This record gives sequence, structure tokens and C-alpha cells, in this order.
Amino acid sequence: MKKAAKAGGCAQSFEVESDSLTKVAVIGASGYVGEELVRLLLRHPRAELVAVTSRQFAGKTLAEIFPRFSQLQKTSRLRFSQPEPAQLAHRAKIIFLALPHGRAAEFAKPLLQGGARVIDLSADFRIEDAKIYKEFYGHDHPVPELLGKAVYGLPEIYRKKIADAKLVACPGCYPTSILLLLLPLIREQVVNLASILVTSLSGVTGAGRKVDADYLFAECNESMRPYGIPKHRHLSEIEEQLSIFAGEKVTIQFTPHLVPLNRGIITTIYVDLTERIDADSIDSIYKKAYRDEPFVRLLGDTLFPDTKNVAGTNFIDIALRLDPRTSRLILMSAIDNLVKGASGQAIQCFNVMRGYPETTGLL
Amino acid sequence: MKKAAKAGGCAQSFEVESDSLTKVAVIGASGYVGEELVRLLLRHPRAELVAVTSRQFAGKTLAEIFPRFSQLQKTSRLRFSQPEPAQLAHRAKIIFLALPHGRAAEFAKPLLQGGARVIDLSADFRIEDAKIYKEFYGHDHPVPELLGKAVYGLPEIYRKKIADAKLVACPGCYPTSILLLLLPLIREQVVNLASILVTSLSGVTGAGRKVDADYLFAECNESMRPYGIPKHRHLSEIEEQLSIFAGEKVTIQFTPHLVPLNRGIITTIYVDLTERIDADSIDSIYKKAYRDEPFVRLLGDTLFPDTKNVAGTNFIDIALRLDPRTSRLILMSAIDNLVKGASGQAIQCFNVMRGYPETTGLL
Amino acid sequence: MKKAAKAGGCAQSFEVESDSLTKVAVIGASGYVGEELVRLLLRHPRAELVAVTSRQFAGKTLAEIFPRFSQLQKTSRLRFSQPEPAQLAHRAKIIFLALPHGRAAEFAKPLLQGGARVIDLSADFRIEDAKIYKEFYGHDHPVPELLGKAVYGLPEIYRKKIADAKLVACPGCYPTSILLLLLPLIREQVVNLASILVTSLSGVTGAGRKVDADYLFAECNESMRPYGIPKHRHLSEIEEQLSIFAGEKVTIQFTPHLVPLNRGIITTIYVDLTERIDADSIDSIYKKAYRDEPFVRLLGDTLFPDTKNVAGTNFIDIALRLDPRTSRLILMSAIDNLVKGASGQAIQCFNVMRGYPETTGLL
Amino acid sequence: MKKAAKAGGCAQSFEVESDSLTKVAVIGASGYVGEELVRLLLRHPRAELVAVTSRQFAGKTLAEIFPRFSQLQKTSRLRFSQPEPAQLAHRAKIIFLALPHGRAAEFAKPLLQGGARVIDLSADFRIEDAKIYKEFYGHDHPVPELLGKAVYGLPEIYRKKIADAKLVACPGCYPTSILLLLLPLIREQVVNLASILVTSLSGVTGAGRKVDADYLFAECNESMRPYGIPKHRHLSEIEEQLSIFAGEKVTIQFTPHLVPLNRGIITTIYVDLTERIDADSIDSIYKKAYRDEPFVRLLGDTLFPDTKNVAGTNFIDIALRLDPRTSRLILMSAIDNLVKGASGQAIQCFNVMRGYPETTGLL
Repeated sequence: MKKAAKAGGCAQSFEVESDSLTKVAVIGASGYVGEELVRLLLRHPRAELVAVTSRQFAGKTLAEIFPRFSQLQKTSRLRFSQPEPAQLAHRAKIIFLALPHGRAAEFAKPLLQGGARVIDLSADFRIEDAKIYKEFYGHDHPVPELLGKAVYGLPEIYRKKIADAKLVACPGCYPTSILLLLLPLIREQVVNLASILVTSLSGVTGAGRKVDADYLFAECNESMRPYGIPKHRHLSEIEEQLSIFAGEKVTIQFTPHLVPLNRGIITTIYVDLTERIDADSIDSIYKKAYRDEPFVRLLGDTLFPDTKNVAGTNFIDIALRLDPRTSRLILMSAIDNLVKGASGQAIQCFNVMRGYPETTGLL
Repeated sequence: MKKAAKAGGCAQSFEVESDSLTKVAVIGASGYVGEELVRLLLRHPRAELVAVTSRQFAGKTLAEIFPRFSQLQKTSRLRFSQPEPAQLAHRAKIIFLALPHGRAAEFAKPLLQGGARVIDLSADFRIEDAKIYKEFYGHDHPVPELLGKAVYGLPEIYRKKIADAKLVACPGCYPTSILLLLLPLIREQVVNLASILVTSLSGVTGAGRKVDADYLFAECNESMRPYGIPKHRHLSEIEEQLSIFAGEKVTIQFTPHLVPLNRGIITTIYVDLTERIDADSIDSIYKKAYRDEPFVRLLGDTLFPDTKNVAGTNFIDIALRLDPRTSRLILMSAIDNLVKGASGQAIQCFNVMRGYPETTGLL
Repeated sequence: MKKAAKAGGCAQSFEVESDSLTKVAVIGASGYVGEELVRLLLRHPRAELVAVTSRQFAGKTLAEIFPRFSQLQKTSRLRFSQPEPAQLAHRAKIIFLALPHGRAAEFAKPLLQGGARVIDLSADFRIEDAKIYKEFYGHDHPVPELLGKAVYGLPEIYRKKIADAKLVACPGCYPTSILLLLLPLIREQVVNLASILVTSLSGVTGAGRKVDADYLFAECNESMRPYGIPKHRHLSEIEEQLSIFAGEKVTIQFTPHLVPLNRGIITTIYVDLTERIDADSIDSIYKKAYRDEPFVRLLGDTLFPDTKNVAGTNFIDIALRLDPRTSRLILMSAIDNLVKGASGQAIQCFNVMRGYPETTGLL
Repeated sequence: MKKAAKAGGCAQSFEVESDSLTKVAVIGASGYVGEELVRLLLRHPRAELVAVTSRQFAGKTLAEIFPRFSQLQKTSRLRFSQPEPAQLAHRAKIIFLALPHGRAAEFAKPLLQGGARVIDLSADFRIEDAKIYKEFYGHDHPVPELLGKAVYGLPEIYRKKIADAKLVACPGCYPTSILLLLLPLIREQVVNLASILVTSLSGVTGAGRKVDADYLFAECNESMRPYGIPKHRHLSEIEEQLSIFAGEKVTIQFTPHLVPLNRGIITTIYVDLTERIDADSIDSIYKKAYRDEPFVRLLGDTLFPDTKNVAGTNFIDIALRLDPRTSRLILMSAIDNLVKGASGQAIQCFNVMRGYPETTGLL
């Protein structure tokens, strides 16, 4: 790999020796998150996608199921399969799980035992505390012994741990859009923790490729609606992460809304500050926190986040406003729920785990 | 009029004596609000639309400008005109102003002097206090002597005053969706006034038929964005109304968002209650407040407001949830910004002013 | 009934004697067509909706299933039921079938035997010829003896027959948008029959409330696609009707496309004329054909049909252009697939059957 | 450059010597086509974008005008400028013109004289015949001496000429979607030329970033409409190209429709074949024509083109159906109007002109 890096391996050059590529597999590639992951991996100059699995589509080629991938370089040989985990762990160095919540846990153990490193995009390993898992997901965790071993895959926060992790749990889309807004302030202890209120708006792919009347075109188009109040499952990971950084139990208010577009999340957060602090000082906190982050864009004083500026990208756009009328701070972010909120972030973790430049395959 | 009511005047019957109809006019009918107002008046069984004015379209027929109206009963004779206010006041008993903010004020005075009653859909007369007007609109009010005389056109709150009003100022779309959620609680004094936080989502017609790059299809489709932070103009009327009912100055947090659909507003409000109060008691407050209101629908414990259920109607759908985790109360509403948020509410005021059943022409 | 008509019964007056209303029922009211039918019947001043049936929703109120109907006049008492056909035929004078193709046929026979008149919105009775039915629908017709007794429910063409019909088969949405464009020319024998080419674009409700991955929001939004080529089922009724008026077997080209909006069909047809005929003569043919039609709007030389002008209405907007470069005639129409293309047309038929003014409840 | 090609220059490697990159400039980068061109050039591993010009935005950075580009590699130094053509020709080897029709012609001459090669995305040089230009564009061509020198930039057809061209005129979006469907058949002389009928559907970016009431969100959303009948300007280039390959003057029927999505064109064409020819033979014609084409995807017998499968890509998806009922052949294609229909195709031409692999920067 070292040698290959020197030679400048890249998407368009074919002379790269195959050992310079990392063999990867995607388990459960039939949903929107899995499809986006495959799209990004196919373009990734350092990844070689050796297997794509799906119970539903086993035997079909990628292009049959996702016509948008046909004739893309490398896709012709790819066919959905259904190999044993142990066998997969043998073939691929890093394995992505894009399975529904609950099913990922079953796969992780044999894959890890087989020697593979795992990047899980489900909610199964995002929570450290098995009690919280049970409270929010309604049943005991199937492999609690792995809970403490997973690293929460938010590279801006846990980069170092991710680099060495065997098991990475990629954050949910809402949590990504919320935590990157809140954590810099929490770390500086300038927020009244009880005051945190979060409103989020999500495009419809956020619900996954769920064949349910609620997500039919004519039920969503020209429709907007709050939902999941007051205890959306994502609260469990959001509050656990906030609590870790606050050093005390944090409980927040969170209201998601469904909005008629394909991709994107807008999050707007209101907080009371613990002390008089001016807008410049707040700006400094964010500038310091995200100065070297390739995917965090601070929009400054005049712009607002807009999902169309992040759609299809791994960026999170962030804006802040201190309201002189109420002294509250308003934090706003925009992400693409399928990229920075899921598959792009997984690739970013992959880059960190493999020591590649973090933007590889993502710009 | 009494006689007509007995005779059962209705949209489809032509034998109704013309004196049983109220002659009305619409000034400035070229925007979305004006167009919707014309649509509703054309269907209204007790209104006779005698004039529709527009500088831009003077001389053209309604059907040329709004092809959707062609061949509707009564529209064939209607042509956009540009009459003098005094002359209009002579021809129509009630005159609707659907003009941009700032221009309505000029028209109101001569119309009132001419003896007409005026229903203004702009922001010009929504605020009682000339200082607040100047603070939010940036210039002195052109006819401050009329400010105190206008009645705020929210029938659920000011029905009696509207009945006798000469000048009605219809609320803005955001204020309608917000005030009908908050006022019952404010009147009962169970809300911590400093805690009120409002997030609203609006469809694109909320911006009017403004020919601006920001509202082009490809700039709005697949886009969501917060805007107007922290001091949207609608705050002036919202806070003035809240203050009147609270008996003290109220300052709230308000964040509007632009969302890709034509019609609809979703408002989500968070409040702290002043005392321990259970969900049933809150429900009772709303049931009492809105028991006999024909256009307020309380959704109960399982449903959430959805703009598709109110689109094209004058309903406001309301849901409440008490969050046991944070003890905050979450209030949610859905309206059609062009109907209950503007033209439908204007018709509702018209019905009140004329003593017609309040739902006339609106169901 | 006669008496009631004199008295001027209308939506807003409650003193109308109940015998002046026609009792109606809707069987299978859970799809988009059924829902729209219920919406229109609830507003109809001469219809009393006595029953709404649904296997799926039996026992629930209308408002539980369609929250948009709650608090509408008259809906509170309505609950989905599942009565026997014979019993229904006893309670309602006219019964609408809004069932999937294939299931309507089973219901029609007992209803007719019970003395009710039936307006069927499915495809089951649209075709006279049992062989054509079999060819396009793949199985024998379940009640072939009724085939010849149904009247094709296109009032602009079959008004007189509809007035006395026991069984009316409402046309499909595509056929309505196509036949009203073609029939005037076919009757005048000025079209080269072999030259007829039809392209149609349909909104997504055209597919019904089918819970299928193809109709999920994210599969339709930002998507357009032709489908159903070359032998869409609607061809059977289109060609049968054209053949009847042409006096010979007509075969046309027809390509439907799915387009991301809720409601609306645009049809564009190309024909060669049999003789040199000027634009004025063609205009005259359409003016003569549709002069007194309340729901046909001829747009003239400058406008084009646009679905937004017909959405929610029973209008069909029609435009013609003679192309001097190719001598072909281009015919274009716009309808709302759920109104003029289904439920509105059914109401129009109902009005004809009951001798009410044809626009009753539809403007 | 030769040397660099060997070394394998790519987007992510920074050690590439700058002489291995081709210096390019974009004139008029403020519309949707210009923006997309900039997006693609920023990702292109062999292009160095040295200047981006705009009268409107001169002095601003790219990121200020297009926030979606901020923090992308290389954009920080880029600022909109307004240099003299001669000066630009000195700085950049290949210059893209993304100007409105009519303005591109003025720029081309001095740029060519200055030694640059020009890729024009406007309509100014697409037509060889000055008379046709005048007929369709309404005025004499400003630099008729250049007309015959431009190469029509459809690489699948004119690859060799493009390789050496000084001036390339990129086809319009409709023409691309139409010509790639028709030319294989025309070359084989199996089509009845008088029979060609084309229906196209376009997303709203096809109209450009035109600030006009017709393209406001609420005028396009939930709207579909035919337009530009019978003589859309794109007919001039379509018919000229068809005529060249047919060896005789070809006149076709063409109807464009505006449809509510951002990106995409669906084209459906009907043709009569000159002789009995079976489906397999037609397939063979297309397979032969496009066997080695990296951006043409033949969908086979079961799939239909769908804009969502080509959005954001340079692919054209093609499907064919022979209708046994009418013996007509139906040809269908899907492209992204901003990529294969404009900027992607311009990049493809650029790759051909520079001898790069044709997919460079486009997969």
C-alpha cells in the first residue's frame, strides 16, 4: 500500500497494483443508504468492492437492481450474493453493514471473529449503555459484550479512536446534524444544558426504502408533518454523546419533521448560554473546533444553511446567530442525510481507519 | 338580507334577488393571496364580486390572467380595472385589500371615508402601536390615526369586534398558526412567557408571487432553509397580541423555514408551563376554547398535523403533546397559508361582518 | 325531487326536505378516486351520502381514515361499513363503485338486481366487446351479460344515454383526456385514422394508492419515465370508442409517462388530416362540438393547457395548433385525473342521471 | 503533458507537475450550465480552472455566489473576473463559453484569434447554414465566417473532427436526447423521414436561471405544460443534423413539455420504418453504433429510461420498442439536461480535444 500511495493510485489509473486497494464488502445493499454507499465506493480510488450482499436480490447484478450504476467502471462483475460471514471476513478487510436496525448485530460478531473490521451504519452499536438501548429499542441488546467496544463514528470528534477501531458505529443522520452543532459548546461548558431544544426537518429518504403507504409520493408531496414526538429513537445516541461531554446526564427536546424532498436535513437548535458571551467568542469556539475539518463549513454572518448546497456531498454547513432580543443562541446545520448523515460519513471513517487522506473519494 | 336568508340564496340558484348579495371588490388581485380571494369569492353564495383591480392587469379579463378561473360562473363579465377609491366605495359595501405591505394604508382612508368597510390582508393595520410598526417596518406609519381603529381579524379571538368593525386587519399566515396555539394557554396564565419558542415551516407561496431568483423552481425544489432570523416582521403582531392577553410585554423566539411545497404552514411551539398541570387539563383548556369553532380541529392524542389535510381549506389542525421527559408542552398546528393564513380568514371575517353563518362559502 | 328543485335546495341551507336529496353510497372508498368522490359528494347540494364501504376500514369513521374530512358538515355520522349489496341497494338510489378493476363486476349485478342505479369507476364495464376485454385484461369477463348494458360515462358524448342508464361505466383518466380531443374530428371524418399518435403525462395519483416501491416518494420525485408500452390497458376503451365513431377499427399509438406531481394529465396528440383544412375550420369543429359544454374550455391561439389550471376542477382545457411545417394537427388537453378523469366525471354523470344542472356540486 | 499522462495525474494527488494540467477558463459562469461546468471542472483531474468570468459577479469569490462550492479543493483562490478576451486567450488553452445565445459569438472571434480553442455551450455556432440561423433566431449571424468552422460537439458522432477542432459548438439538451436516438437509424436509411415525431419532457433547469414569473416555484410545482409549438429553436440544429445524415432535407414534429423536476429530459420518438425489419435487427443497429461508447447505455427489452438514473451523470439511457400493433418503432432516451445535455458533454469534448480518456472527470 505504501508503495502504491507513492505511485499515486487514483480512480482513473488502472496500473495501480491491486494490493494497494483495500478490499471491502457491503452487507445489505438494497436500501437508500446501501445504494449510496455502493455509489461512493465505486468511485473511491482506494477501495475495491469485492462483495455486495442482499437476501432479496441475491443472484442479480448491481446494474439490474440499480440501473444508475450500469456501465460504471468495475460494476459489471458485481453481483449480489449471500455469503457466510466467516467467508466474507476472509475476502474483505473492511465490511460495511447497511442492514436494518437489529439485524446488524447478528452479523458483526462473526465478522469480527473472522478478522474483518466492521463499519456499521445501523443503530445497533451506537449506544454504549445496554439499559438505554433497551429503553429506546424495546428489547435487550443481542450482543451486549460488543457494545462497549464500538467506536462512535463521528470523525470530527472521535478521529483517533476510529483510526484503530475494529467496530465503528456510524451515527444516525439527525445525531450527526445535531452533535456537530452542540459538542463544541458543550465542551466549553457555556450552555445551559436544560435549555437545549432541537427542531429538525428531514427529506423522505431518511425513512429508508420502506414500502409503506405513509411514504408514497402522493402522501408526501405537498405534505409536511412533525412526527416521532416526544421520544424519537435517535435521542438515545444524541443524549448519550452529550452526556459524555457534559459530564452529567443531558436531556433535550427534539422534534423531527418530514418534508417533501429526497435528500437533506435541516437542524435548528436553540440554547441558553450559561454566561454573557458575545457573538465573536462563540464564533471563535467553532472556528477553533473546526478549523482543520475538511467537511465542516462555517457559513459566517450572512448565509443560512440550505440543503441544496450539501446535497450529494459530505459537507455539513453550519451557521450561528445570537438573538439580541432573547439572548438565546440559534445553531443551524444542513447535511445530506444519505452522505454526511450515513454513507459519506462511513467512507470518511473508512479513510481514517486506513490512513488515507480523509477526503479521499469524497470530493 | 334577512329575507334572502329565508329564501335560501345559494351558489347554484340564480333566482336570488340581487339585494340579498353583498357587493364586494378586491383591490390588488394579482398576487397569490388576491387570486385565492377571488377564487373563494366566486364560489361564495352571498358575495357579488363587482370589481377586481390591478395596476398591472387593468383592462384584461380575469380569465386571461388566471386561466383557471375561465368559464367559472360570473367571471366572464369581470375585467381588471383601476377605479378611484371613492368610486369603488360607492359600488361595493365591503372592499378587500390584497396589496403589498405599505400600499394598503393609502387606499384604506378614502375607502372608509367613502363609506365602505375594509378588510385589509396586508400588514399595514395589524399593529396597534405606531412605535412597534416603525421598529419592524422601518418607517413611520402613513395613517397612524387609523391604527387604533382597526380590528385584528382573528375571528376565534375577536369575533364580536369584527362584527362591527369598519376596518379589519387580517393576521399574517405565521401569526395565525401561532396565536391560535398560544392564546388559550396565555389567557389561562399557565405558560412561562419567557420560555416560548416557535419553529415554523412555510410553503413557497408564503413569499408571494415575487419574481426573485430565490424563489425560482430550481432554487426551492430539493431545498430547505431557515431565514428571517432573528427578527422576522411577523414577530411584531405576534408579540403585540400575546402581550395584550398576557398583560405584560412578551418576547418570543421565532424561526421560519422555507420548504418545497406550494401551500401550507407547520408551526411547532415549545413552552414551559408555570405549574404542574396534567395533559388532561391542557386538553380541557383547548376543548373549551375551541368547542364551537367551525374551523379549529383538535387532533387528539394520536394524530399529528399535516399540511395536506388542510390544503385548500380554512381549517387549522392542532395537536398537543406533553413531554414527560422534559415537562415541556409541544404545540403543533397546520394551516393553508393562503386560506386560513390569508384569504379564507378574510372571508370568515366577511361572514362575521355581514352576519352570515361563519362557514358560508368556506366548506 | 321536482318540488325541491324549484325550492332551490343548496349546500348551505338546511331546511331542504330530505326527500329532495338523492341517497347515494360509495363502495370501496379507500383509494384516491374513492376519497375524491367522497370529498365531492360531501359538498354536493343534492346528494346525501348514506354509506361508505371499505373492507379495510370497516368500523372506522371517515375522519379517522381521511383526517382532511373531519369537521366537514355531515361527516361526523359517517363510518366505513361493509353491508350486503342487496341491503345497500335498498338504502341508496345511486351507488358508486370505486373498486379495483375486477372487483367492481361482482358488486354490480346484485346492486342492479336490488333496484339501485350504479356508477362504476373501474374499468370493468367500459368495454362493450367481451373479446377485447379478455385481450387486454387477460381473463374472461365475469358478468358478460352486463357488458352491453353499461353506458360509457362521457357526458359530452353520451349525455342522453347516461340520463336513463342503470349502469354507467366512467371512462379512465387517459381515455377522457384523449377522447374529448379526438372525437369531434373523428365524427367529422377529417382525420387519417392510421396517423393518430398520443403522448400522455400523468401525475402519480393516476397509479392509485398502490403500496409499491415504484411509487415511493423518492422513486418518483426527480424522476420521469415512459411506461406501459406498447399496450396499456386504457387502449382498449380508447380504441373501441374511436372505432364506434369512425365506423371502422381504429388502432392508435399511445405512450403514457409518469411525472412527479400529484394530480393531472397532459395529453398531446398528433394527427394527419385527410384533406387540406385550415385552422379556422378546425376551430369551428371544436367550437360547435363544445359550445354549450360547461366543463370544456377551448384555450384559443395563445395559451397552452397546464395542469395547474385544472387541478381540483372538473374542467378539461383544450388547445389546438396546426403546424404549417408538417401540416399535422397537434391537439393538447389538461385534466385533473382524479376529477374530470374519475370522480368529478362520475358526479357529472350523477347529475345527468338525476336531472340536476350538470355543474351541481362541481363549480 | 505526455509525461504527466504516464505518471497518472489524478484529482487526489498533488504532486502532479502543473504542466500536465490543461489550463481552462469559463466565460459566463452564472447560469445553471455554467455552474455545472465549474462543478465538473473542479473535479476534473486534468483541468486547471484559471479563470471564471461574470459581468454580474465580478470581484466575488466562487464560494460567495455558489456556496455549494466552498471548501472544495482549489476554489479558494477563484474569484469571478472580467478579463479581456485576448488576455484570457493568453492564460487558458481551452475556453468554455457558457453565455446566453447571441453573446457567445462576440467572444469567440477574439479568443480564437488569441490562439485559444473554444468550446461554446450556446446555440451560436451549432448551425452551419446562416439562412437557417436567421430563420430560427430572427437576425443575421454576427460572425458568419465562423459558422462553417465550428464542429458540432456530439462526440458519439463527430469524435474525430472534435479532436482537432478550434471551435466546438456543444449541442442543445433536446438535440442531444433526440439525435443520439435517431442518427443510427438515419445512417442505415431504414426510417421514413416524413414520419418522425418527437415528444420531449424537460425539467425546469432547462429554461436556465431565468428570473421570470413563469419559472417561480409555485408556477412550476404541480404543473405540466406543452410549450414552444410548433417551432422551437432547437429544431434548427436537430433538422440540420438529420438532413446531413439523410442526404436530404428532413422536417420533423417536435413538442417539448415543461415538467416539475430540476434536472432531466425524457424524449420519446415515433418513427415508421421503411421496410419490414425485426426487433433484433434494430437492436443490432444500436449495438453496433454504440458498442464502444462509454456514455451510451442500451437498456434492453424490459427497462425504460428514467431521469433519476442519469441525474448528475453524463449517461444517455436508451430503450427501443417495436409496436406490433402499429409497426411503429418507439425510441426513448433519458439524459440530465445539464450534464450530457450541456456541461458534461462539453467536458467530454474537452477530453477528446486533449486526447484524455473520454470518461476523465465524468465517472
